Amino acid sequence: MEDFFTLRTVKWKKGAVLMIDQTRLPERISYIKCRTSGEVVKAIKDMVVRGAPAIGVAAAMGLALVAYRSKVKRKEGLLKELESASVKLGNTRPTAVNLMWALSKTLEAARESSGDVEAVKESVIQTAVRMADEDVAANLRIGEYGASLISDGDTILTHCNAGALATVGYGTALAPIRTAVKQGKRISVLADETRPRLQGAKLTAFELSNDKIPVKVITDGMAGYVMAKGLVQKVIVGADRVVRDGVFNKIGTYSLAIAARYHRIPFYVAAPISTFDPLNSSSTVKIEERNSREVTHISNIRICPRNVDVINPAFDLTPLSLVDAIITDKGLLNYPDQDNVVRLARADTA
Amino acid sequence: MEDFFTLRTVKWKKGAVLMIDQTRLPERISYIKCRTSGEVVKAIKDMVVRGAPAIGVAAAMGLALVAYRSKVKRKEGLLKELESASVKLGNTRPTAVNLMWALSKTLEAARESSGDVEAVKESVIQTAVRMADEDVAANLRIGEYGASLISDGDTILTHCNAGALATVGYGTALAPIRTAVKQGKRISVLADETRPRLQGAKLTAFELSNDKIPVKVITDGMAGYVMAKGLVQKVIVGADRVVRDGVFNKIGTYSLAIAARYHRIPFYVAAPISTFDPLNSSSTVKIEERNSREVTHISNIRICPRNVDVINPAFDLTPLSLVDAIITDKGLLNYPDQDNVVRLARADTA
Repeated sequence: MEDFFTLRTVKWKKGAVLMIDQTRLPERISYIKCRTSGEVVKAIKDMVVRGAPAIGVAAAMGLALVAYRSKVKRKEGLLKELESASVKLGNTRPTAVNLMWALSKTLEAARESSGDVEAVKESVIQTAVRMADEDVAANLRIGEYGASLISDGDTILTHCNAGALATVGYGTALAPIRTAVKQGKRISVLADETRPRLQGAKLTAFELSNDKIPVKVITDGMAGYVMAKGLVQKVIVGADRVVRDGVFNKIGTYSLAIAARYHRIPFYVAAPISTFDPLNSSSTVKIEERNSREVTHISNIRICPRNVDVINPAFDLTPLSLVDAIITDKGLLNYPDQDNVVRLARADTA
Repeated sequence: MEDFFTLRTVKWKKGAVLMIDQTRLPERISYIKCRTSGEVVKAIKDMVVRGAPAIGVAAAMGLALVAYRSKVKRKEGLLKELESASVKLGNTRPTAVNLMWALSKTLEAARESSGDVEAVKESVIQTAVRMADEDVAANLRIGEYGASLISDGDTILTHCNAGALATVGYGTALAPIRTAVKQGKRISVLADETRPRLQGAKLTAFELSNDKIPVKVITDGMAGYVMAKGLVQKVIVGADRVVRDGVFNKIGTYSLAIAARYHRIPFYVAAPISTFDPLNSSSTVKIEERNSREVTHISNIRICPRNVDVINPAFDLTPLSLVDAIITDKGLLNYPDQDNVVRLARADTA
């Protein structure tokens, strides 16, 4: 685990997709191997792999598995198989936009391939593999841009896990922190534990302590307290989808953004352009409601009385007005608003 | 459990103190019986009994046990025993002010008793028993005053447990809700689960569902989300100590108050005058730091990697500027500030 900076969360290996099983971290570091797109669907639903960028690449690799294993002889037949698998992969997590982005990009590569069925297969596999490499490269750029915002001695508060484990490697929100540390800055991190699934306590704390970056875990309700005490200089979070008017990210992000603004602490979102969805505004996005058991139970232990209802939205919306900058792989978007979000995203696809 | 409105969390029974064991709720409703003040010290430290008003009465009953069991023949000897026990009881939880209030009130009764040693004993026991009755009476008044702020159809968000279980009975933050329901108003409650100790998920949900008051549990990070969705009309919380310039209450209260203000949702604190500490300002109050295991473990299951640090302050400070009203047993304190907090508390002791 010494080289965590370069560890791969999702990778293609000889016709299979290897993923770190994140449901078992931090207790156990183990991999699962998916040989079919159905197994990838299950891994995404069960959050074996999670984090918008990692999910996108996993889904693309799900299509690569379809291509790799297909026995059809004609291109049209393969495209039908890919489209059918794409629908199933796309329905796993409705909010994360990278999933749609990665699937449509991979399908596009298949459709545009001018060769025979074998050439299409190869194109799909290469697209998925390249997407994984590009994700890491994008995160390294996010690290460079974001590190310019971080000063020596800063303590940075983060929410959920937008680290190496949420991406193919290096992370989004944690990328600027890693790069700042590599630049010799002394940085500490406070990690919200992030109920209900505790990705902060389990994954962010695991990643950062592996990298020997000082980290302390706090409960989600402590954010205001640590800010009032002057223990936090910046907040950096990831994103599951950046729309024209706001950022969807793990539930709890919005409360954190409000607390940061109240204390005049800069609140930054780190996300690659693949997380941008400039065609949509927040009102059109469906927030995934997850199983109530995630709230009522922790590790199979019931914490609520029986028959008590809960709500369990996976994400919330932070309006752009609460975001001081979005740190993208194409540069910093300071004071983001509808205009510059759309412009940046369009410049990328142009 | 039908008559939860009148259930007693702490009570004196034939030379023993009976307490509901709150560490076992909601799984099991059981009582522990303390026969010595040392057992009361342990029960407070272990949070068998918790909630500022309940702790105060439990401590007074701890002194009643000293009186009941004392074998000394002279008044001075008994006073020494009471003072010694009082120090130990007072050191259990440093932030809750009712503890100090209850101990000094009980000691005062002992000192002022003009009779023989038996008369002093009787006076101490009677003071503690009366304090329990007065707590319930104060909470009923809080219920009346607070219910005037609640409209038919309201959903009220609360944090931690400031219910019957945090008091001798009826509750502080939950008192206005109970009274409003008795008045025929249709009220729903959202209960923050309240990490790390989950008093919202375990105790508030238990109490309210026992009373057939509709309640849903949310994780602490969902507060901003439910406010933005228009699902909350008012926030009511309890208090562990009201000082000249703010309110100490369970960690997470401050973040909630900030989110309420951001959404212009009224934020109310319900607390009897015994929770007021008008001689102190916030800078002089020590916030109890509890065992890190409360954060790193849930029900003996480790949720953080080993060797990862946490912080665990039990309380935070909400400045009065974020509080729309304090609901006391002496009436509503609208727009509380240093002047009217001190005035109200002084009027009580005058």
